[in-house]
Amino acid sequence: MLYVGIDLGGTGIKAGLVNEEGTIIARAECPTGVERGHEAVIADMAKLALDVIAKGGATLGEVKAVGIGLPGIQDPRTGHVPFCTNLYWHDVPVVELMQKVIDKPIYIGNDATVAGLAESVAGVSKGYSTSVFITLGTGVGGGIVIDGKPYSGPNGVGSEIGHMIVMIDGEPCTCGNRGCWERYASATAIIRMGRESAQLHPDGAIARAVGGDLGKITAKTVMDLAKEGDPQAREIFDKYVYYLCVGIVNLINCIDPEVIALGGGVSKAGDFLLNAVRAKLPEMIFYKTMPYARIELATLGNDAGIIGAAMLGR
Amino acid sequence: MLYVGIDLGGTGIKAGLVNEEGTIIARAECPTGVERGHEAVIADMAKLALDVIAKGGATLGEVKAVGIGLPGIQDPRTGHVPFCTNLYWHDVPVVELMQKVIDKPIYIGNDATVAGLAESVAGVSKGYSTSVFITLGTGVGGGIVIDGKPYSGPNGVGSEIGHMIVMIDGEPCTCGNRGCWERYASATAIIRMGRESAQLHPDGAIARAVGGDLGKITAKTVMDLAKEGDPQAREIFDKYVYYLCVGIVNLINCIDPEVIALGGGVSKAGDFLLNAVRAKLPEMIFYKTMPYARIELATLGNDAGIIGAAMLGR
Repeated sequence: MLYVGIDLGGTGIKAGLVNEEGTIIARAECPTGVERGHEAVIADMAKLALDVIAKGGATLGEVKAVGIGLPGIQDPRTGHVPFCTNLYWHDVPVVELMQKVIDKPIYIGNDATVAGLAESVAGVSKGYSTSVFITLGTGVGGGIVIDGKPYSGPNGVGSEIGHMIVMIDGEPCTCGNRGCWERYASATAIIRMGRESAQLHPDGAIARAVGGDLGKITAKTVMDLAKEGDPQAREIFDKYVYYLCVGIVNLINCIDPEVIALGGGVSKAGDFLLNAVRAKLPEMIFYKTMPYARIELATLGNDAGIIGAAMLGR
Repeated sequence: MLYVGIDLGGTGIKAGLVNEEGTIIARAECPTGVERGHEAVIADMAKLALDVIAKGGATLGEVKAVGIGLPGIQDPRTGHVPFCTNLYWHDVPVVELMQKVIDKPIYIGNDATVAGLAESVAGVSKGYSTSVFITLGTGVGGGIVIDGKPYSGPNGVGSEIGHMIVMIDGEPCTCGNRGCWERYASATAIIRMGRESAQLHPDGAIARAVGGDLGKITAKTVMDLAKEGDPQAREIFDKYVYYLCVGIVNLINCIDPEVIALGGGVSKAGDFLLNAVRAKLPEMIFYKTMPYARIELATLGNDAGIIGAAMLGR
């Protein structure tokens, strides 16, 4: 059987025809145009779905289901998307509206959750039944897969691992709490630490790398300098690795996955980051003589959204 | 069918014959006598199992399985108990040794995990597929039930929720890390805060309640005074409730259970604690308009160990 996967983001919609193994056979995309309202966006998603089926030389009859990954959640009671901040959606009956155009089962998942599913079907967590995907970007998102199935909890509000509190009374978070993991383990956290360091060391390598314009500091600025051995950047990097390991250890102590896959912008630091996490983690593990999650880099990159959405219907 | 549940602790072994609904039909117990070594302890467990079957007027043929809850974990690769600190056990093949005496399926679970299972079968989480049981005692233990099954993870090291780090670089924990939740949400934490407060206020109600002997401060000392409205005790209580909610919110954001059941010594504060947690939690919830876990008091008390162990075989 074939599946259609749709990766709905704030700026673009990407669709793919995907086979049973999680390989993308055909692709199509268009801008989201959120300002047009949800009905136009959903009509475009349906159109892209039909496009990729045609492009892939398939028929609607060969397609088992259509899956949509979006930056929000689905209410398991109503099947509606209760809110999707980036899209300005409130209580949108996505499944009903899509099915008016495409009479197939429609599945909806959170974008990080479907990326985690993708990694477990066709990426680095393939062959493992229980895994956690962590996206280290502006925030920190999570996709939990338990027994091969994406896990969002009975109320659909689970897997928000970026909002685990790891620092009582810590940094204020956009969610209203303080000390959420994403305040310490996101690209935003690296930028914050980079700025603080550059203020303390105005002649240091971080400040020099952005010509003194601290607003230009990115996570990559700091990571690249840490790789080169700059002491201030290295200090931030070591702190970041520790903070990342704090949340990873929490996930191991709660969920005990077989694999934890690191994705998102910060993971582009590659083996430099991976090796540091793998070196730090053993001292923080609770059951030191027992096996615990392998830490890996996610492998599917931006395709994870399409593949994972498609795999919701598998 | 009937089940035997055995609650193996550091000081005593309690066994029960349990029916399909999780009701204890017959009981027996004996001291553990850890100093005799694991073979003698396992022989006593087998003997108690046969005792409760006889006491309950049942035959071995009517018993489907024997379950054991113990203060340790089972290695899912070997079936052995790799270590059980309170019992001084190392790599003990409990299943093999039990089966030499009782030719029935033998199941092993962590004591907090089986207590969680018990609450989900016959206690406050009954009727819900996904729940978390939290035992607030000397430490903080957890029992996660997902889709009606006890969850310990593929490596058997999950559900150690007391060792979630909630305070980066916080209080040192027995596990070697700093800032584990049990340093903030256990009875031990209340005692620590009580002592600190009594040192600051040597004429305060906490110090007076123990005649100035701060070593005598218990969690109950502080909780009772907080109930009576003593300002210092109330301050500790409010802080404790916040710390408790931090971990509860983390569990909701990761696992999104339908029910979170509070057990263990601290939960004896009853509605005073429950109402405070329920009042504090809403402001800390991420998806404020979505349903989230009901917070409840566990109802099975000490019987949870026997019932949950028995239910491992169901």
